Amino acid sequence: MAPNNYLLIIERKREMKNVNVAIVGATGAVGTKILEKLVERNFPAKSIKLLASKRSAGNEIKAGGNTYIVQETTPEAFEGIDIAFFSAGGSISEMFAHEAVKRGAVVIDNTSAFRMDKNTPLVVPEVNPKELTKHSGIIANPNCSTIQMVAALKPIKDQYGLNRIIVSTYQAVSGAGVEAIDELSEQSKQFSDRSEIQAEVLPSASAKRHYPIAFNAIPQIDSFDESGYTLEELKMINETKKIFNDYEMSVAATCVRLPVVSGHSESVYIEIDQDNVTTSEIQALLEKAPGIVLQDDPTAQLYPMPLYAEGRDEVFVGRIRKDLNHPKGFHLWVVSDNLLKGAALNSVQIAEELIN
Amino acid sequence: MAPNNYLLIIERKREMKNVNVAIVGATGAVGTKILEKLVERNFPAKSIKLLASKRSAGNEIKAGGNTYIVQETTPEAFEGIDIAFFSAGGSISEMFAHEAVKRGAVVIDNTSAFRMDKNTPLVVPEVNPKELTKHSGIIANPNCSTIQMVAALKPIKDQYGLNRIIVSTYQAVSGAGVEAIDELSEQSKQFSDRSEIQAEVLPSASAKRHYPIAFNAIPQIDSFDESGYTLEELKMINETKKIFNDYEMSVAATCVRLPVVSGHSESVYIEIDQDNVTTSEIQALLEKAPGIVLQDDPTAQLYPMPLYAEGRDEVFVGRIRKDLNHPKGFHLWVVSDNLLKGAALNSVQIAEELIN
Repeated sequence: MAPNNYLLIIERKREMKNVNVAIVGATGAVGTKILEKLVERNFPAKSIKLLASKRSAGNEIKAGGNTYIVQETTPEAFEGIDIAFFSAGGSISEMFAHEAVKRGAVVIDNTSAFRMDKNTPLVVPEVNPKELTKHSGIIANPNCSTIQMVAALKPIKDQYGLNRIIVSTYQAVSGAGVEAIDELSEQSKQFSDRSEIQAEVLPSASAKRHYPIAFNAIPQIDSFDESGYTLEELKMINETKKIFNDYEMSVAATCVRLPVVSGHSESVYIEIDQDNVTTSEIQALLEKAPGIVLQDDPTAQLYPMPLYAEGRDEVFVGRIRKDLNHPKGFHLWVVSDNLLKGAALNSVQIAEELIN
Repeated sequence: MAPNNYLLIIERKREMKNVNVAIVGATGAVGTKILEKLVERNFPAKSIKLLASKRSAGNEIKAGGNTYIVQETTPEAFEGIDIAFFSAGGSISEMFAHEAVKRGAVVIDNTSAFRMDKNTPLVVPEVNPKELTKHSGIIANPNCSTIQMVAALKPIKDQYGLNRIIVSTYQAVSGAGVEAIDELSEQSKQFSDRSEIQAEVLPSASAKRHYPIAFNAIPQIDSFDESGYTLEELKMINETKKIFNDYEMSVAATCVRLPVVSGHSESVYIEIDQDNVTTSEIQALLEKAPGIVLQDDPTAQLYPMPLYAEGRDEVFVGRIRKDLNHPKGFHLWVVSDNLLKGAALNSVQIAEELIN
């Protein structure tokens, strides 16, 4: 190791001890997981400030043997903060992210507010870490369903080229927040009690009509745009192209909400550039890919399932098989905990890359 | 009306009165629905004989104000039977269908036993009714997930040509029988009581390993073949080609079981032959198609959902939209009650076509 590099590492280590962290939306489904991941991964934070709405201010949250008092999100709350995780909805990010940047923080934003902004890198550390050098204060964490898919497809794209993706999702309710988890639980009880089903949260709190999610599948996540696609589908399409920096690639998505607590599943069809690639070669590639767990043995009934992915950091891939008609077509089944790799973990990994 | 036609109708009415019907598997999820549909649709049966295993013999089943006594399935039970509905699993069909045919019955078989047999028509009455004239005693009812898909795609294929289908399914547990419905119900209670989850039925009773379906998604329906595809996926692929009598068409399927009681949903991607077709034109086509209900208005959050398709005879189609990259590509969301149009209703419709 050259002396210059050594000195640089010493310098960085000193900086790391000085990281003051804030979590905006700290009481939410993702915010609480960000705090858990910071503690679990020994993130070198000097302090962690939990921010939420005025309503939640004063609440206590325990993690890693410490008790944190939730404070109200205000512009001044970001004074002295080095890294601010935002996960309180797009409007809060729009309101406060620039205030945080103005006060010297780097914002890692888990909402869709800045994802498609030209000056905002959209980062999955295993996929496009170099983008992190290009930020001007804000780094966007991609949509949960996008992250797990691009993480699984990146090794394939690098090795064989990738020109087409058609994905149908099987998404958990936790992606719609704590209220949606509670709603699924309540509705499941109402069903077994044969009492009236109350639906007030899904498909989205702001929607005009709400439908039961228990024992149902709702083909709407987020609202519709005039093209007939939902914003969730457009996020998957546009974010995938941005993360892969490939705007020639054909990407299509259908996004569906399921009665699953946590863990998004995806039925992914891809077309690669190379001829004569075998299923075993793709399996071998994914087996050694960072952050990926290959669970693919039909004879042993081994394949990923959301119930078993909950609480796990990795992206699980299985059911890999060649299309029976298209020689360059393959099918995959990709599952990951949408609150972890899909949100909190990826945000913390971005922060780790930043300080390393 | 010409006098000849009138006489013909009289003649048919006389014949219709003479139809003696048997239902094999009469105590099962589909068998009970076949009886319900025969009664509800005033099927002109002179008699209805309910057949099942020795274990169920003697049980009483009530329908349409009548009480039926379940009898054991034996070769002799088919004496005098004109139409025999089979829905008791492939091995029972293999054992008794030819016995029924030998005794003069036409068998309408809801299992996969004869579906790919060259001499057995595989029929969805709205799609390929002419095949009914070609039977040699046995007519196969297609797989539930195939029926609703081909019913939705038939008008599109006729009008614009269809060369490619990629489908991901969201299938209800009732497709795996009454035991699977009970298992989902029990597991849902076990989850809310936080007691241990018992899994003994799904993905299939004969599988070595069983997984919980409540709050989960299982990417296995039926067993695997050596290609890595499940038999359910191969059924969808091969049956679709046979029903459309188009072996050049590219068909791919990924089949997934969900915690939904009844109602299969499908995310279907298609490529048509014609250029410049609009979403509105496809909507207009499906709106007037027999047995199809178009539920497609994003601004009103109108789209098909399995919870609302349960107990309904029709195939519901929505979320129709053009692919953003492929000018001949379209996406559809297709939902239907797998026990009705997917099984019992289609079988009864085949019988109605036969006697008309």
